[in-house]
Amino acid sequence: MSSAYQSLREEALAANLEIPRLGLAILTWGNASAFDAQKGVLAIKPSGLPYGELNADSMVVLDLEGKVVEGRLRPSSDTKTHIVLYRAFGKIGGVCHTHSAHAVAWAQARRPIPCLGTTHADQTASPVPCTPMISAGALAADYERGTGELIVETFAGRDPLHTPMVLVAGHGPFTWGASAMKAVHGAASLEEMARMAILTLSIDPSAEPLPEHVMRKHWERKHGPKAHYGQG
Amino acid sequence: MSSAYQSLREEALAANLEIPRLGLAILTWGNASAFDAQKGVLAIKPSGLPYGELNADSMVVLDLEGKVVEGRLRPSSDTKTHIVLYRAFGKIGGVCHTHSAHAVAWAQARRPIPCLGTTHADQTASPVPCTPMISAGALAADYERGTGELIVETFAGRDPLHTPMVLVAGHGPFTWGASAMKAVHGAASLEEMARMAILTLSIDPSAEPLPEHVMRKHWERKHGPKAHYGQG
Amino acid sequence: MSSAYQSLREEALAANLEIPRLGLAILTWGNASAFDAQKGVLAIKPSGLPYGELNADSMVVLDLEGKVVEGRLRPSSDTKTHIVLYRAFGKIGGVCHTHSAHAVAWAQARRPIPCLGTTHADQTASPVPCTPMISAGALAADYERGTGELIVETFAGRDPLHTPMVLVAGHGPFTWGASAMKAVHGAASLEEMARMAILTLSIDPSAEPLPEHVMRKHWERKHGPKAHYGQG
Amino acid sequence: MSSAYQSLREEALAANLEIPRLGLAILTWGNASAFDAQKGVLAIKPSGLPYGELNADSMVVLDLEGKVVEGRLRPSSDTKTHIVLYRAFGKIGGVCHTHSAHAVAWAQARRPIPCLGTTHADQTASPVPCTPMISAGALAADYERGTGELIVETFAGRDPLHTPMVLVAGHGPFTWGASAMKAVHGAASLEEMARMAILTLSIDPSAEPLPEHVMRKHWERKHGPKAHYGQG
Repeated sequence: MSSAYQSLREEALAANLEIPRLGLAILTWGNASAFDAQKGVLAIKPSGLPYGELNADSMVVLDLEGKVVEGRLRPSSDTKTHIVLYRAFGKIGGVCHTHSAHAVAWAQARRPIPCLGTTHADQTASPVPCTPMISAGALAADYERGTGELIVETFAGRDPLHTPMVLVAGHGPFTWGASAMKAVHGAASLEEMARMAILTLSIDPSAEPLPEHVMRKHWERKHGPKAHYGQG
Repeated sequence: MSSAYQSLREEALAANLEIPRLGLAILTWGNASAFDAQKGVLAIKPSGLPYGELNADSMVVLDLEGKVVEGRLRPSSDTKTHIVLYRAFGKIGGVCHTHSAHAVAWAQARRPIPCLGTTHADQTASPVPCTPMISAGALAADYERGTGELIVETFAGRDPLHTPMVLVAGHGPFTWGASAMKAVHGAASLEEMARMAILTLSIDPSAEPLPEHVMRKHWERKHGPKAHYGQG
Repeated sequence: MSSAYQSLREEALAANLEIPRLGLAILTWGNASAFDAQKGVLAIKPSGLPYGELNADSMVVLDLEGKVVEGRLRPSSDTKTHIVLYRAFGKIGGVCHTHSAHAVAWAQARRPIPCLGTTHADQTASPVPCTPMISAGALAADYERGTGELIVETFAGRDPLHTPMVLVAGHGPFTWGASAMKAVHGAASLEEMARMAILTLSIDPSAEPLPEHVMRKHWERKHGPKAHYGQG
Repeated sequence: MSSAYQSLREEALAANLEIPRLGLAILTWGNASAFDAQKGVLAIKPSGLPYGELNADSMVVLDLEGKVVEGRLRPSSDTKTHIVLYRAFGKIGGVCHTHSAHAVAWAQARRPIPCLGTTHADQTASPVPCTPMISAGALAADYERGTGELIVETFAGRDPLHTPMVLVAGHGPFTWGASAMKAVHGAASLEEMARMAILTLSIDPSAEPLPEHVMRKHWERKHGPKAHYGQG
């Protein structure tokens, strides 16, 4: 099948297949989408399909109104949340949502993940924020859209690319980035940061956050204007 | 070998093979059965055989009196427990029992698993119940049947399809569902829910249950009359 | 190469290869031996060789005096401990030693593993004992033999086949059984029991041991004169 | 491509590929280098490349001034830290740095890992030291060199081959050894030691260190002049 969205579908497919490969979801518990800002459309995993049955054709293409542009299947039940993020965060090219266990644990404890070391600072120079619990009103109005709006409100006054990840209280992590694959790799990083934070606090419940000078250095090493990590 | 129960045997085989694939059992520590309500028979794993040696022929077919209808091997030592559940719960098509570590830990602590997040609520809008410890009398009368009866008593007044899983105190989890494969996937979900609950309480020992409105929403999203998850 | 001990070597090889397959050791951190009571010899893993480089020829055959009967390599540094167990426990056909993390943790805490559930009772109807710390004198005399003697002393008055496993204080687990493969499977069971006990106590630090009637029933179901597990 | 450093590149490649194989890093979170003392050069992983894309040609060869001698890619951002260790520790042939979760947890808690058992003593007869937090001044001057100097200062008065591993506070583990592969295997050992120590303290928060006589015996069994482990 020929499609104007073939490469976007393939990007979405590759990112979704990386989710189980990195151990971020069992069964069908995670999804990723890829966004094409030029065309104003995203491609996302269909709802409830096992990763082993996915192919480029099964990805669902939608516009930012949530209208299906191409695809025979029902999109992920989290699609509206992805859309709210693309609309609000402008410069991002991918979103990922998983139920990875350690990130979910922090979300269920409804606590931000403190920045205890350089592994965390390599991803963001701040704690990973946790939204408030969604209200009964927002949930009744439109649960998935409300979840996205809760994230956007939590990021008021922040640059979402400086902290490309969040915990939705009682639910789990959402991550985003320049591409769908970067969003999935952010989800893997977040899961490790969450795991390391739990382990650290099991050794010393009053472990101190990483000092500001180290936190800033690590983030800038990878992301600042003088970044010198990778081959870019 | 031709058999009137070939497809039931194959369903049971596929479900049993999924147990080690999902990391729910080492050695021979888990079993699943598939039930054919029309014919009134179940097919179950033979006792003590490694998963790698199973095939459709090695599955044992029994009626609800526990009489072997077809099969050369001795059925799982937990067979009578499965049968009690099929007799009591009516509409179920599969049962699974494992010794997955985190679900067992809650069973050994003899505590229900609180619903701390949406991962749990996607499976059931209530805590996962834990039976009382089996009495010396029930054990002496018929241990495996008594285990099943303990589960049934624990579900008095509940819809077993609303909470398709239980912890048997001091023992481990049993799960059930519309098919044998769904029962095994329920066992995988339960293991993750159990793991997340332990991790959450290690972050905050007084973590609050998920509010009623979110719990109900998630369960209904997947299971209620307005379910909009999957392609069904 | 033809050898009078070919099948014993192959039994030892298969058991040693099962150690990394079951996740019981990284690098070279575990060994198993197979014993031929008729011939009075054991075959054991050579010292320090990665599992991927083992073959039947590399197994070392020794008599119960510790004399190498056949084999070009140096035997496992734990060989004398294995020999003490074969001499003292009479009816066993295999021994296994690993550094699996959760069993080691209990050994390092120098505590027996309480029997908190049926997974444990399926293996033994008692706590898994922990030896005292080896004395400086016993260590100076012959460390590996002293380790074996410590185990034997810990089992004074016990049937080693009723509890085919022990923790050596500050060190780690040793397991044994009717064959080398059964000893390795016992090591896998012990690691799971150790993990489940840690998880259980993290949920409830005062979790109660399994009641005597359930503990006895489970052990007898698998091992007693009326055993009805497996196809045997 | 023919190179004077082909075998050094291949040694570095093999060691880097072992990092994900042993589960010591996700994504690109670990690196190893191999040192040729004769030629005064090291070969190290390029920065930010996934392990699956590495080959011998992509390894970067540098001298001990940090000048690239051969290679088209930018070396690991941790290269200067490796160089400081080669200059200071003289007799080592390999260095490894990972973000393995349990070792990082101790580094984030800024605590040495106590020697609680023989698994640890097989690697070193002392706690695994933890550096102080890097000062703002050392960080501003040259972060990666400063990290190396912090390690060297922590080892003042110690033989780095008796304790071939360290935790950098707030960051993670560095290990070294006679070869790059030995450094990586040291990183795997350290991760297990770190995990076992956390598990042990979860069972008994006041667990005692291994007595001196056992600690010394185990280390000497593998490393002392009378070592009798392995085939060497």
